[in-house]
Amino acid sequence: MSEDKETSLLGRKFSRRTALTLAGTFGAGMALGGGGALSARELAEGDQTVEFYGEHQAGIATPQQDRLHFAAFDLTVSKAEEIRDLMRAWSDAAARMCAGKSVGGGNDAFVPPEDTGEAQDLTAGRLTVTFGFGPTLFEKDGKDRFGLASRKPEALQEIPDLPGDNLDPELSGGDVCVQACADDPQVAFHAVRNLARIGRGAAVIRWSQLGFGRTSSTSSAQKTPRNLMGFKDGTNNIRAEDEDLMDNYVWVREGPAWMQSGTYLVARRIRMLIEIWDRSPLLEQEQTIGRHRASGAPLGKEDEYDKVDLEAKGPDGLPLIPMDSHIRLARKDQRERILRRGYSFTDGMDSKTGQLDAGLFFISFQRDPHRQFVPLQRRLGQNDRLTEYIQHTGSAVFACPPGVRRGGFAGESLLA
Amino acid sequence: MSEDKETSLLGRKFSRRTALTLAGTFGAGMALGGGGALSARELAEGDQTVEFYGEHQAGIATPQQDRLHFAAFDLTVSKAEEIRDLMRAWSDAAARMCAGKSVGGGNDAFVPPEDTGEAQDLTAGRLTVTFGFGPTLFEKDGKDRFGLASRKPEALQEIPDLPGDNLDPELSGGDVCVQACADDPQVAFHAVRNLARIGRGAAVIRWSQLGFGRTSSTSSAQKTPRNLMGFKDGTNNIRAEDEDLMDNYVWVREGPAWMQSGTYLVARRIRMLIEIWDRSPLLEQEQTIGRHRASGAPLGKEDEYDKVDLEAKGPDGLPLIPMDSHIRLARKDQRERILRRGYSFTDGMDSKTGQLDAGLFFISFQRDPHRQFVPLQRRLGQNDRLTEYIQHTGSAVFACPPGVRRGGFAGESLLA
Repeated sequence: MSEDKETSLLGRKFSRRTALTLAGTFGAGMALGGGGALSARELAEGDQTVEFYGEHQAGIATPQQDRLHFAAFDLTVSKAEEIRDLMRAWSDAAARMCAGKSVGGGNDAFVPPEDTGEAQDLTAGRLTVTFGFGPTLFEKDGKDRFGLASRKPEALQEIPDLPGDNLDPELSGGDVCVQACADDPQVAFHAVRNLARIGRGAAVIRWSQLGFGRTSSTSSAQKTPRNLMGFKDGTNNIRAEDEDLMDNYVWVREGPAWMQSGTYLVARRIRMLIEIWDRSPLLEQEQTIGRHRASGAPLGKEDEYDKVDLEAKGPDGLPLIPMDSHIRLARKDQRERILRRGYSFTDGMDSKTGQLDAGLFFISFQRDPHRQFVPLQRRLGQNDRLTEYIQHTGSAVFACPPGVRRGGFAGESLLA
Repeated sequence: MSEDKETSLLGRKFSRRTALTLAGTFGAGMALGGGGALSARELAEGDQTVEFYGEHQAGIATPQQDRLHFAAFDLTVSKAEEIRDLMRAWSDAAARMCAGKSVGGGNDAFVPPEDTGEAQDLTAGRLTVTFGFGPTLFEKDGKDRFGLASRKPEALQEIPDLPGDNLDPELSGGDVCVQACADDPQVAFHAVRNLARIGRGAAVIRWSQLGFGRTSSTSSAQKTPRNLMGFKDGTNNIRAEDEDLMDNYVWVREGPAWMQSGTYLVARRIRMLIEIWDRSPLLEQEQTIGRHRASGAPLGKEDEYDKVDLEAKGPDGLPLIPMDSHIRLARKDQRERILRRGYSFTDGMDSKTGQLDAGLFFISFQRDPHRQFVPLQRRLGQNDRLTEYIQHTGSAVFACPPGVRRGGFAGESLLA
């Protein structure tokens, strides 16, 4: 690749030779961390790479990394071929970065460097890059922009207005999303920045969100992470290693052929009204969630994983787990199960209110948002006591196509 | 402490018994990580605590952690005693958090929890909390607000307007600063959030800044970290373990008695015009900095630590390290050396320009900002070629008092 000096990759021709080079580069060598850039010491620190290619896109069933940089792009091109070129260039760059390599090849002194350089010498940090297509890619303001409208999946409808929404259009929507996750924020930032740069002239960032893991690499003692309300969050989440659950609730098996083995991503920026929450008594907090804060156990139980008993009553005859508590309402319908993979965020002060702008950047993956996320959230938004303490300020939905084959690109089944 | 149920700590009386408890709690047990909250497994992961008490405040000579949450507060009290109560409550809470403990004691169901809980089960993550006092604490709009004006150090003047400044007053100044650094962003966030909560009624956050380390805990192979321009940054920084340099350039030995062994903190939010930088040829980038990007070597040399030769000329007779390059101008006067301890930041998109709002949150420590930082930055702002690619958008200066003695509090020498 080092002979390739073009800084905008959109016009790049992908020769058979390039394709073969790619196949070789990302073939057998992957397990060793992608080679070249990594020192023996880094390799000794453990495998820092996650395979980019495969049946499903990485970053969905992948064990959650510590940091997130999520970006939603609007396309500025006019033809489907240009989207294809973009996705090819992005996939190539993403595969290189996930393997711990720089974008592009050599650095000629007289042209801008192809890679912006801030991740040089860093490991891949388990980077994954996951792509998705928003409803507006298929149809926007009633217009079939790219001739793709007939291929739009039934399941890819905009998320409807939901109770309690307070959405900012500038933090919602987007034609294409990029979810970059890594254990190192500089690696995640580097990925989004370089994709934005490669996309120049074809795509502009509409909004982006940084998140931090609710886990900590410095604490292997922590099992279920805590959110910024101080509660364990994810006790009953789908485990990505449970293939039956993933097949039942996450991987798509219906709709258009191009989405088979893909999934749908719902992103919701959920601001927590932290100052109000922090002034609530512990009892109120625990009754809002339905769990004990310290242990994570369902109310009335001892251990985090004790069975939730929705019938149990206290000495006053009232349900131990209140009717409007979050876990009671969230568990109502097993058909709505989703794979959650969100991150905490804080974006400093809200200058309008002088309060911390912080919360949960909720990400879920599911086979059909309108049978899983939407009814779940509609019920929560209407009845959940937690609604007093949160506001959904951003919303988006994307179709994440299946995984990328070597020599191929993300979205090939739709765009090729 | 568990009997103490007050959620605002400002009114708290510190009895002799409390002081003794504190002394015991933070005495001999410290090296083991502060006890209680940490499991054997966490202890086995290495010492995750940094001592809060000592001759100097922690977070200055401490090896740099991976994450930053910096907050500047404005005081809303009217008497010096109230500031003293605040600093005492803050110091107590900071010491507990740095030792890996929760703020406050037990959790009564009928009152709001004293600790917000999101760091429970996490290690201390090498948390340090560093306090500083801004010029406005001593005098604001010509008013001696707290009777402290006569104790204001000569060195604590506002940073004057400097060439190339494009400051946002909402990202500048502040009466008191809190620099929280940790290897885990959730731990750093937890510290600032809980201090803000304790300070309710006495102090409000004026602005805050998140930063991420340019180092990576997943890559011990990286020595000098890279900034978001892709260049190694800090090759010739003062090493905190070099006590002679620290005594010469960082720790205060002049001015009022209360500042002895303290230091001055300068914070500058330096936005990088990333899109412009990324379009510059490598040669231009390297001539702007004065170093090779890949190796970090001075131009014309091979190795990062090769001596910078400002006399060397190229075949064209021109200086190899251009007259307007950053390293030439930054090295001009040895008396201006500073300890830099900055973090990269990205705050998403600038909605006005549609560009990434990212750069360097510059923090430096020095004996006298007006003899070190100010002349250095004035020269850089006037002549540095780098000025084309950056904008200073925030500015603040704080007097960081000396370290805290057990049973004492930060700023005791000023406020007691």
